[in-house]
Amino acid sequence: MNKKELNPYVSVDCVIFGFDLEQLYVLLIDSGSMEGYKQSRMAVPGDLIYDTENLDTAARRVLKELTGIENIYLEQIGAFGDPDRIGKKASDRKWLESIRAMPEARVITVAYYSLVRMPNFNPKASSFAKSAGWAPVSEVHDLAFDHYEILQSGLEQLKRKIKIQPIGFNLLPEKFTLSQLHKLYECIYDKALDKRNFRRKILNLNILTNLDEKQIGVPHKPSQLFKFNEENYKKLSEEGFDNFGF
Amino acid sequence: MNKKELNPYVSVDCVIFGFDLEQLYVLLIDSGSMEGYKQSRMAVPGDLIYDTENLDTAARRVLKELTGIENIYLEQIGAFGDPDRIGKKASDRKWLESIRAMPEARVITVAYYSLVRMPNFNPKASSFAKSAGWAPVSEVHDLAFDHYEILQSGLEQLKRKIKIQPIGFNLLPEKFTLSQLHKLYECIYDKALDKRNFRRKILNLNILTNLDEKQIGVPHKPSQLFKFNEENYKKLSEEGFDNFGF
Repeated sequence: MNKKELNPYVSVDCVIFGFDLEQLYVLLIDSGSMEGYKQSRMAVPGDLIYDTENLDTAARRVLKELTGIENIYLEQIGAFGDPDRIGKKASDRKWLESIRAMPEARVITVAYYSLVRMPNFNPKASSFAKSAGWAPVSEVHDLAFDHYEILQSGLEQLKRKIKIQPIGFNLLPEKFTLSQLHKLYECIYDKALDKRNFRRKILNLNILTNLDEKQIGVPHKPSQLFKFNEENYKKLSEEGFDNFGF
Repeated sequence: MNKKELNPYVSVDCVIFGFDLEQLYVLLIDSGSMEGYKQSRMAVPGDLIYDTENLDTAARRVLKELTGIENIYLEQIGAFGDPDRIGKKASDRKWLESIRAMPEARVITVAYYSLVRMPNFNPKASSFAKSAGWAPVSEVHDLAFDHYEILQSGLEQLKRKIKIQPIGFNLLPEKFTLSQLHKLYECIYDKALDKRNFRRKILNLNILTNLDEKQIGVPHKPSQLFKFNEENYKKLSEEGFDNFGF
């Protein structure tokens, strides 16, 4: 294959989660704009890799090409390779025929995920994406190909991750309240978490600095503000929590 | 492609760790037996997938074909896709030319791992494997293709896993001592762990049943025997530890 030739057998897909202090969102594109194919067709941003490109580079390139989003850390979820993963649905087959040189090729995809603070990343659709935007995870029930399954795997990965690493840096404003951090954990765990218990355990991790400052201009009793202790946060991110404390 | 045609662009590789109550081992094959290529060439068991096969099925098939080992649970590590991952070394290129229909094809590999109790799994080499056997992980420094890198990723995955799930079931004899369980954790963490601390924390997990029985026929003071409480172990495996105890 030539230098800039697409590899028709391998794609990458990006599951980008966003947090806006209230809800968990996922970045979706509408890929239904091809000639002769007008129906809306939601998918996570993804495309074939170039034959000279490694997987991580491809994921960053594809995300940028379709949504304009760049400079975020993408972590691999894993490979998805059911033989009929892209050919099951008629709408998917029609789309493939309209866009791919080898629509019948079996494509293995390698999925990546990331979690970003939403207001900092405003998607702008380009390439074959007709539109790009944030959808609340709780309202997504169907996607192109096996992307719904890939989304679920991304959520599982996120849940596993917060069991061994702290989360929140880059997701919260520089100064935040314990309620906001609590909300983030509830969004990822997807369940209510006891507030007092959470406060105690998160403070025990020694990653927060009490700023001795309160919120201003809020329509409720202002809360205490915290920031992350960057050094301790980084240390814990690298070492990971350890239940055994070995 | 035909039903039983190999997909020249995607392979699977299996990193199988073994434990013998003393050390951590990895299952390797010598793939250097092809005509015109006599040098020993150690690799983890792996091969191209069939075009009609899903990735998990391919991993189980390839492992069985090359080593005779079957009926173990394989978990995906992830995809490895550097464009030159299989063509860097002259010995790898020579081997590819001797065995593959498309030796120049770019191959993405999907790696799997498992951890088994060694005496229960005795590899028998077949297909293109000249030999198959267990090598102490600490003595493996170089492998075919990017298999050394894949091995290291397998070890990392194992370390992450024991931070959120219990380990030992199916790896230890039905009745075991706390020293044997301690040894398993030390092998995976690859460092010495304080014995008293380990005892306290592992007993707190409530996954062990004290059998009120001691070892017999050992050349040292016999130790207390334990077995896993299957129900509690299974529950904790599914839920995962949680540092926050949410």
